[in-house]
Amino acid sequence: MFDNFTQSIGFIAAICTTVAFVPQALKIYKSKTARDISLPMWLIFSFGVFLWLIYGILILSLPIIIANVVTLLLSLFILFFKVKYS
Amino acid sequence: MFDNFTQSIGFIAAICTTVAFVPQALKIYKSKTARDISLPMWLIFSFGVFLWLIYGILILSLPIIIANVVTLLLSLFILFFKVKYS
Repeated sequence: MFDNFTQSIGFIAAICTTVAFVPQALKIYKSKTARDISLPMWLIFSFGVFLWLIYGILILSLPIIIANVVTLLLSLFILFFKVKYS
Repeated sequence: MFDNFTQSIGFIAAICTTVAFVPQALKIYKSKTARDISLPMWLIFSFGVFLWLIYGILILSLPIIIANVVTLLLSLFILFFKVKYS
């Protein structure tokens, strides 16, 4: 296994790249506009996060599963509002 | 090690969550607007991707290093244009 410092860096990285989507989701929800948001980005990204989730299930990695369930929900939320407001 | 199917899912996932940022970067670059893009999202996300890169270097994982170098560049590109056009 990797040492505590390395593990901590990984955990903080996972938290950052997951919670980062909260302000974007809130911004779209409040402003009710998503014109500058790229539809292909969020389609490809959501699909990629879904595959990361499958990967996490296949290798039985709880941190990968949890991080990607949260990111997938936020990503689909942004995608839904992008489609709704376009 | 994990089997080929699992490895392939991981690689496709990594490719999707990396190339996804290309259409968003191109969209901002062409439209010259980034009003609906969340500044906090891209600040937190870029920092998170930077930490993933450090993590990849610490555990000597070339796929994590390569994927996160590319994502960091695209993410900083989007961040730069968000700041420039705000």
